[in-house]
Amino acid sequence: MTENKTLTLDEAMTLALTVLTANGFSEGHARSIARTVYAGQRDECHSHGLYRLLMCVATVRANLVDGAAVPEVVDQAPGVVRVDAKRGFSPLALEAGRPLLIEKARKSGIAAMAINNCFHFSALWPEVEDFANDGLAAMAMNPSHSWVAPAGGTRGTLGTNPIAFAWPRPGKHPFVFDFATSAVARGEIELHRRAGKPLPEGVAIDADGKPTADPAAAMAGAMLTFGGHKGSALSIMIELLAGPLISDLTSMESQEIDKGANATPLHGELIIAFDTKLFGGNNSADNAARAEKLFDAIVDQGARLPSQRRYEARERTMASGTVTIPAKLYEDILALMP
Amino acid sequence: MTENKTLTLDEAMTLALTVLTANGFSEGHARSIARTVYAGQRDECHSHGLYRLLMCVATVRANLVDGAAVPEVVDQAPGVVRVDAKRGFSPLALEAGRPLLIEKARKSGIAAMAINNCFHFSALWPEVEDFANDGLAAMAMNPSHSWVAPAGGTRGTLGTNPIAFAWPRPGKHPFVFDFATSAVARGEIELHRRAGKPLPEGVAIDADGKPTADPAAAMAGAMLTFGGHKGSALSIMIELLAGPLISDLTSMESQEIDKGANATPLHGELIIAFDTKLFGGNNSADNAARAEKLFDAIVDQGARLPSQRRYEARERTMASGTVTIPAKLYEDILALMP
Repeated sequence: MTENKTLTLDEAMTLALTVLTANGFSEGHARSIARTVYAGQRDECHSHGLYRLLMCVATVRANLVDGAAVPEVVDQAPGVVRVDAKRGFSPLALEAGRPLLIEKARKSGIAAMAINNCFHFSALWPEVEDFANDGLAAMAMNPSHSWVAPAGGTRGTLGTNPIAFAWPRPGKHPFVFDFATSAVARGEIELHRRAGKPLPEGVAIDADGKPTADPAAAMAGAMLTFGGHKGSALSIMIELLAGPLISDLTSMESQEIDKGANATPLHGELIIAFDTKLFGGNNSADNAARAEKLFDAIVDQGARLPSQRRYEARERTMASGTVTIPAKLYEDILALMP
Repeated sequence: MTENKTLTLDEAMTLALTVLTANGFSEGHARSIARTVYAGQRDECHSHGLYRLLMCVATVRANLVDGAAVPEVVDQAPGVVRVDAKRGFSPLALEAGRPLLIEKARKSGIAAMAINNCFHFSALWPEVEDFANDGLAAMAMNPSHSWVAPAGGTRGTLGTNPIAFAWPRPGKHPFVFDFATSAVARGEIELHRRAGKPLPEGVAIDADGKPTADPAAAMAGAMLTFGGHKGSALSIMIELLAGPLISDLTSMESQEIDKGANATPLHGELIIAFDTKLFGGNNSADNAARAEKLFDAIVDQGARLPSQRRYEARERTMASGTVTIPAKLYEDILALMP
């Protein structure tokens, strides 16, 4: 039986901040990372919650990530913000570029932010959700490491390449999705290996490019994309837009730079923001109402909107004022204090 | 045995132009539609080739589409062009807005075009490919009619919602994909019904929302999206961005307006253009070369790039200087002459 530790929301935030600043993260990085892992824990996305502190601290201690990097914001073009994360974690870079992206989107209708040279430890949903809370629709994507074979291929070439999207809903949680274009998350393969369970069909190939259900063979081979050649095409688009378009690495290049260290991938990220009011003009209110009719039609037939489970978890957390993590994880986090 | 009719490329273009102008299409619409069906035929996409002339003429004769609509271009915002197609077919509207979209993308780095009130009869790949030939990356998407159930749902709510993307490749055919977010094309269901063949698993549900392999039951029920909840999420994004964002119809709304006529869907379209040179600055040439390394890695392992078959067909056509269609189709097209 797993023993648990319950923390108030304040305690959880303070724990994250304390551990991060004690391990060489600048105040800005500590704050932006704490805010991100807090959001994950609050929504009961445990793998993106306080658990991530272990990885953040380990990579900074190993000098793989710069915990004090100061992001540099460049006004690249009327519709493009560029942020050089200088090999730091992404949340502070995003924070640094956010105001200019919002300003550009509100002025132009559409604008993009390119984050370069960043490390990601988080999901993309907190990022796009924040834009939706400011009334913008937003799309985000990034490459990773070349663990995924293209459709019809035999070896890892593409990343797990997540894509996320948010749409603002006045008075409600935004419509948000965030998914990897690989058939399953890489962590799933490892979990199956540890549990001695076979993989589902169609998620991986072995080192010879043959379909496999053996997790160890899959780790030595490659994962497949979701949705066959369509998912594969989408994944290639993500490589191009959040890689070469923005002068950043493809997943193959990031894997090469990693040199087997198995660190969190170094990469770029592309965020596209849409000003629904500028696009919609006088029709904006009607447009928002018609989007709601679409959401209603989905929910009314018993289907779920993509982030519905997460929002339900958030409401539970906010009602209780607490989060609960395994006692062992709590001890491991405390042990990070020098 | 099917008898065939072979036409020179000039004959094919002249046939299309003659039939369209003889049936009330304005010169501009005739030219832009002829160019589109010609491109489909040239690439051996037979269902998007000269065959489409039958549908174009039928819908105009039935007054469902305005063959003489004059598209109106509006400079909506620094990053947004809006084109009101005025219930005409989309290619002329696209042509009308194209120069301003390109100008905006080259100035801002990213720009969008919203086409409103248009009817689509063509695939999206010719549209995005054209932008790539002008050195821009481009993404396009549109809703259709609500034939597709959301993941976990029981009834048609989403459209077949295609998404297309193109990336310019100096000296080569662009990287282009174009796919429906439904598991199969709607025409596939009808083909299976006629052939008395069962559908593959996981592509459709019946009127009670239960999985079905019976094409007739599927036509009375709904199609499913590709890739489960991920494809479903993507399809919802397309509804929002090419629907309410741009003050245009969702697939449900378009279906309602259709009132059972089963006409080609009335809808909007969103095109996003990216200036790879403005995004890349001094790194543009290096970025393009790194994208080529990704394509090489895909092709070198025996996988195909999404449009490879189509480009091979194009090369065959250009070498022979002719296209071949069923003799019956040729007669049907000639019979459209008043």
